[in-house]
Amino acid sequence: MIEATFTTPIEDRLGLVEERMRAQSDGHHSAVGAALHHLLSSGGKRIRVITTLLTGKMLGGDADKLVTLAAAIESLHTATLVHDDLIDGAVIRRGIPTLNAQWSPAATVLTGDFIFSKAAKLAAETGSVEVMKIFAETLSIIVNGEITQLFSSKWVANRDDYYRRIYAKTASLFETSTTTAAILSNANDQIISSIKQFGYDIGMAFQMVDDILDFTSEQVTMGKPVASDLRQGIITLPVLYYLESHPQDIEMKSILENNFCDEDCLGRLLVSIRQSGAIDSAFSEARQHVKKGLDQLLKLPVNSERQALEELASYIVDREI
Amino acid sequence: MIEATFTTPIEDRLGLVEERMRAQSDGHHSAVGAALHHLLSSGGKRIRVITTLLTGKMLGGDADKLVTLAAAIESLHTATLVHDDLIDGAVIRRGIPTLNAQWSPAATVLTGDFIFSKAAKLAAETGSVEVMKIFAETLSIIVNGEITQLFSSKWVANRDDYYRRIYAKTASLFETSTTTAAILSNANDQIISSIKQFGYDIGMAFQMVDDILDFTSEQVTMGKPVASDLRQGIITLPVLYYLESHPQDIEMKSILENNFCDEDCLGRLLVSIRQSGAIDSAFSEARQHVKKGLDQLLKLPVNSERQALEELASYIVDREI
Repeated sequence: MIEATFTTPIEDRLGLVEERMRAQSDGHHSAVGAALHHLLSSGGKRIRVITTLLTGKMLGGDADKLVTLAAAIESLHTATLVHDDLIDGAVIRRGIPTLNAQWSPAATVLTGDFIFSKAAKLAAETGSVEVMKIFAETLSIIVNGEITQLFSSKWVANRDDYYRRIYAKTASLFETSTTTAAILSNANDQIISSIKQFGYDIGMAFQMVDDILDFTSEQVTMGKPVASDLRQGIITLPVLYYLESHPQDIEMKSILENNFCDEDCLGRLLVSIRQSGAIDSAFSEARQHVKKGLDQLLKLPVNSERQALEELASYIVDREI
Repeated sequence: MIEATFTTPIEDRLGLVEERMRAQSDGHHSAVGAALHHLLSSGGKRIRVITTLLTGKMLGGDADKLVTLAAAIESLHTATLVHDDLIDGAVIRRGIPTLNAQWSPAATVLTGDFIFSKAAKLAAETGSVEVMKIFAETLSIIVNGEITQLFSSKWVANRDDYYRRIYAKTASLFETSTTTAAILSNANDQIISSIKQFGYDIGMAFQMVDDILDFTSEQVTMGKPVASDLRQGIITLPVLYYLESHPQDIEMKSILENNFCDEDCLGRLLVSIRQSGAIDSAFSEARQHVKKGLDQLLKLPVNSERQALEELASYIVDREI
C-alpha cells in the first residue's frame, strides 16, 4: 500500500477494506484463504480503493457502504489480475511470484472465479442495483478488452486501438470507482458526471504512466522485465510517439513489417525510444489527462478529501512505480 | 432443449430466454459471439431455465423479470461449465466438442469470465438486491466445491463428502433457481421456504441420476466416456452403495488402498457395480429426494405450472440422458 499524505483522511477505512477482503475466504476451503492471503499481501498500491474511499468521503457517503464498495472494486481488480497473469504466463508481479507460478492452472482459474464471486457479493452488499449493473458492465468491458487483445494481430500501431485498450484495461475501473462511490453517496447527476470524468482521466493517465514506466524503469524497481509490452508485440504510447517522430526508423519499420523483434532488436529500440522525445510526449499526454481530471474536481465540494484526490492525481504521473 | 409436456406452459418464454442469452455478445468482439453461439447450441437441456420459469409463473411473477432471471441462471451455469471443462481437460460434452477442445486455454478462461460478467449483469437487471446476493453466494458455493475437489485426495469413499459435493456442484443452483424465482414473484416466506426445499431436492436427485447414468449408459448416449468419474478417482453414489454391500470386494479394497485402477480394473468394477443392487439403491435414494420435493409442491397453488413442475421432478429420475 502507498504511504502518502493523500491517504490520511481515510487511513482507518483502508484498514477496514483489507479486513473485508481477507474475510471473504472465511468458511471456505483453506486453499482459498492461503491464495487470498498471498494475493492481498503482494504489495498492491490499492489506488482504486483510495480513489473510491476519498470520492465517497468527499461526497459525505455512508462509511460502511463505501468500505464494502471499495472491497468489491479491489476484489474485482484482483480477480482479473489472477486470470490475466495466468493467460500471460507471468511468473512475477510487483517482484512477487504470481499465483500461477506456484499453483496449477486449474487452481488459478478457480481462485480467480472465487474472487469474482466475492466481488459480486460485496457489490450486492452495497444494496444498490445501479452499482451492481455498472459493476457487471465494467467486468464485461475489461474482459472484452482482453479477448480483443488476444485475437488481435501483434505489432499494430494504432492510436485508437491503444486508447480503447487502456480504457478497457484500466480507466473503466477507475471510472467505475468514482462513479459508484458518488452514486452510493446519493450525489446529484452533475456531481456524478464530473467525478466520473475525473475517474476516467486519472485512469487513462495511470495506464499511460504504467506504459511509460515499462520503458524508463529498471527491472529491479518494476519487479518485472523492462519493455514487457514490446516483448509481447503490444505497442503502447511511447512507441506510438516514437513512430510518429521517426517514421523512417529502419528498426521499427522492419518490426512492423515482419512482426518480429529479437533481444538485440528490443535492446536497440529501447535505447532509441529512451533517447527520443517520445517519453516526454507520452508523459505530457498523461499530464493533460490529469489536468482535465483536476478541472472536474474544481466543481466539487472543497474539503480535505478533495485536496487528497488532487494529490492522488498528481501522484499518478509523478510516481516511480 | 427438452421436448416434453412440462415445457408447454412456458414455451414462449423459453424462446425469449435463448434470445436474451444470445444477445449478451452484442457490441463485443466477434470471437465472443462465436463462442456464445457454440455454447448455446451445444444441446443443453435448459433444465434450470425450465425450473425457474415454471416456478415464477406458478407464483404469478412478472414474465420479463423471470426471463431475465432464467437467462442469468443459465449463463452462470454455462460459465462454470466452460471453466470446468477447461480444468478437467474435457474435450467433449453432450457429444459436442468443448470450447477448450477448439480454443486456447487463454480464450477459454476469458470466455468463461465474459459469461460470468453477463450473468451478473442479467442478475442485476432483475432489480432485486436479494436475488443478486443469493446469486453471488451460489457462485462462491459452486467454485468452493470445485476447489475442494481439486485439493482432495482421490478415491475417498465418504457419504458426507459426496452430499456436500453434489450440493455445491448442482443442487445449490437448482435451489437458487426456485428461491430467486419465488422472491421475484413476491412470494411469502413460507412459499419461498417450500419451493427452496423443492429446488434442493430435485437438484440432489438430478446429480444422483447423472452419477448413476455415468455407470448405466453407453458412451454413444452420454456423449462422454462411461464411468468418467471413477476414471478420475471420484467416488459417487453407486460406488458408495456397492462398497457398503460388498465390503470385502478385493478389487475395490485394492483401489482404495493403492489409489489406482487401470482400464482392466475399471472394466471389471463397472460390471460388478452394474450387476449389484447398487444402481437400484442409488436410484431409490434419488427417488426419495424427488418424493420429498413433490411433498413440498403440495403446499403451493394448484395450477398447470405446478403440475408441470411435478412432471419435471419425475422426468429427473426417469430420463435416460
